[in-house]
Amino acid sequence: MVTVASSSRERLAPHVRRNQLIDLGLQLLGDRPLDQIPVDEIARRAGISRGLLFHYFGSKRGFLTEVVRRAAAELLRATQPDPTEDPFDQLHHGLLAYVKYVQANRTGYLSLVRGAAGADPALAEIFEATRQSLVDRVLAGLGDARPSPTLRVAVRGWVAMVEEATVTWLDHQPISRKALVELLEHALAALIE
Amino acid sequence: MVTVASSSRERLAPHVRRNQLIDLGLQLLGDRPLDQIPVDEIARRAGISRGLLFHYFGSKRGFLTEVVRRAAAELLRATQPDPTEDPFDQLHHGLLAYVKYVQANRTGYLSLVRGAAGADPALAEIFEATRQSLVDRVLAGLGDARPSPTLRVAVRGWVAMVEEATVTWLDHQPISRKALVELLEHALAALIE
Repeated sequence: MVTVASSSRERLAPHVRRNQLIDLGLQLLGDRPLDQIPVDEIARRAGISRGLLFHYFGSKRGFLTEVVRRAAAELLRATQPDPTEDPFDQLHHGLLAYVKYVQANRTGYLSLVRGAAGADPALAEIFEATRQSLVDRVLAGLGDARPSPTLRVAVRGWVAMVEEATVTWLDHQPISRKALVELLEHALAALIE
Repeated sequence: MVTVASSSRERLAPHVRRNQLIDLGLQLLGDRPLDQIPVDEIARRAGISRGLLFHYFGSKRGFLTEVVRRAAAELLRATQPDPTEDPFDQLHHGLLAYVKYVQANRTGYLSLVRGAAGADPALAEIFEATRQSLVDRVLAGLGDARPSPTLRVAVRGWVAMVEEATVTWLDHQPISRKALVELLEHALAALIE
């Protein structure tokens, strides 16, 4: 705490300071919903004024949008396929990484999913872009350079299924993580037939 | 218009008046998002004051919540299975009715789906109850009195898939409605295996 405060009072380059503030936001997103992140506390932890935080992000909403953007980037990074693996292993490891990520970052993930579908256009855009990246990855993994319209609709639906099944599963974890992943793989295999 | 206005100036019983206002809201939801429904216009069409509308519903938000609740009830009614049919036909006709309903009520449906996932707890509750009703229907149709946890997670995911695939499909309708329904049936069949 002392370290953070004293190092923070140094004069940091703007992009470094921005990154530091987003990191702090992401940490707090770990245990509370997006709209309950206290920007005052974040400014205090960074050893700067609330005014400087607003200077960097324009508004509280602007700051929270960047926190969600970072959460989305982390999700995509955490589930990045290894191109040296065969497609089936890529899918399997990607799904496993996805479920683990959601498990470890429950509230942040829910903010991404729920906020997106809500009234905020900036969050909706981040969510849409993230979902589309996941869809594109799956389509690329299927090795079809020009996927049919049916396959596109199917994979889009499947990604929504993965999201919802994982969030539902998180509540009580009524089956093992392995069983969840197998269920989702089985569904995709049936769809691409 | 004249008819509506003159009949509306009659003294209506509160529940009749409430129903009339919700119906008008639902009509306007046909071609614009929930948050753009003008309560002033609805009061005018009903031939009452804005104040009386607020008297019935507490607030604009309260009124819009009832409009979405009605939309959800209509969706469930429109997709009600016929218990005299065999389970496969019930599923097939239910899915077809669902896709037709979403096609005919695009903006209202999107308000239900998107609003739900947003920050409004009342809308989130309506969405959750509607989705759960659809899940329960599918589980009942599968004829399993005590569905396994795996089956519950699977069907929950499948309903999310149906929602997302249908909404995505609506944008450009790249495949026929029949092909969409078959795709979704095929996915469920694979999941319950």
